[in-house]
Amino acid sequence: MEQRVSLITLGVTDLDRARRFYEALGWRGQEVEETVFFQAGGLGLVLWGREKLARDSGREAGTAGGFGGFGGFGGFGGIVLAHNVRSRDEVDALLGQAERAGGRVTKPAAESPHGFYSGAFADPDGHPWEVAHNPGFPLAEDGALTLPEFDTL
Amino acid sequence: MEQRVSLITLGVTDLDRARRFYEALGWRGQEVEETVFFQAGGLGLVLWGREKLARDSGREAGTAGGFGGFGGFGGFGGIVLAHNVRSRDEVDALLGQAERAGGRVTKPAAESPHGFYSGAFADPDGHPWEVAHNPGFPLAEDGALTLPEFDTL
Repeated sequence: MEQRVSLITLGVTDLDRARRFYEALGWRGQEVEETVFFQAGGLGLVLWGREKLARDSGREAGTAGGFGGFGGFGGFGGIVLAHNVRSRDEVDALLGQAERAGGRVTKPAAESPHGFYSGAFADPDGHPWEVAHNPGFPLAEDGALTLPEFDTL
Repeated sequence: MEQRVSLITLGVTDLDRARRFYEALGWRGQEVEETVFFQAGGLGLVLWGREKLARDSGREAGTAGGFGGFGGFGGFGGIVLAHNVRSRDEVDALLGQAERAGGRVTKPAAESPHGFYSGAFADPDGHPWEVAHNPGFPLAEDGALTLPEFDTL
């Protein structure tokens, strides 16, 4: 696993309110399919409905946060990190490696609607990582992710 | 507020276990004062005791996660984002701006033991952001953060 983060997704209850907040701080993003993407250095910061985010990570949105489950896998705190890789094989390999290292695969790798392939694991404290191959989000040689211009896709 | 993230801190219950997990995935970091720092592209990914992390953000570690408080400020999910700036004045200014934008200042700006100055706000969904001026963690012109070599400080 390269030492980098591709996306940080914040689960939100009201996408417009969340977008307005970050825009009031000066951020500018793109909205596509009820998702707001901000380019933030070499990664994307994403706002997405938190129920969908939890489901997508194989987690329950309604459970207590990461602080609920001392000593074991915590609940879902509403922030998901993503690590994008360069091939589907790397997705499978990294999920296997995470499990052997003491993590828990919360969503086995599967194809998603937009041609990407992803799964998810939780680290020993329950922090969720999505692992994805998404040809639409190019990775530089150093792993930096650049969001596409969605309206030109 | 520049459009970037400086640190992602994961609250953990067992620092050694968490460090071993990320090391088993191939990550290499530095441990200093019960904190593990990994350089991850232009930001730092940090492992820190979750009680300390919650306290440091002005949050309660024991409350339900970000999914507990629909429609309002959620609880603490165990992940804190940090946005480092270039001066103490910028810390004050950004906390004020976050409040005016509909966020909540959860920790007023104050000096910390290591010569840095920081405060924290929660976005409308309760996601915590630390805002910090930390001369020990240099920022490049584009905002990328480079962790110091702690053992040479």
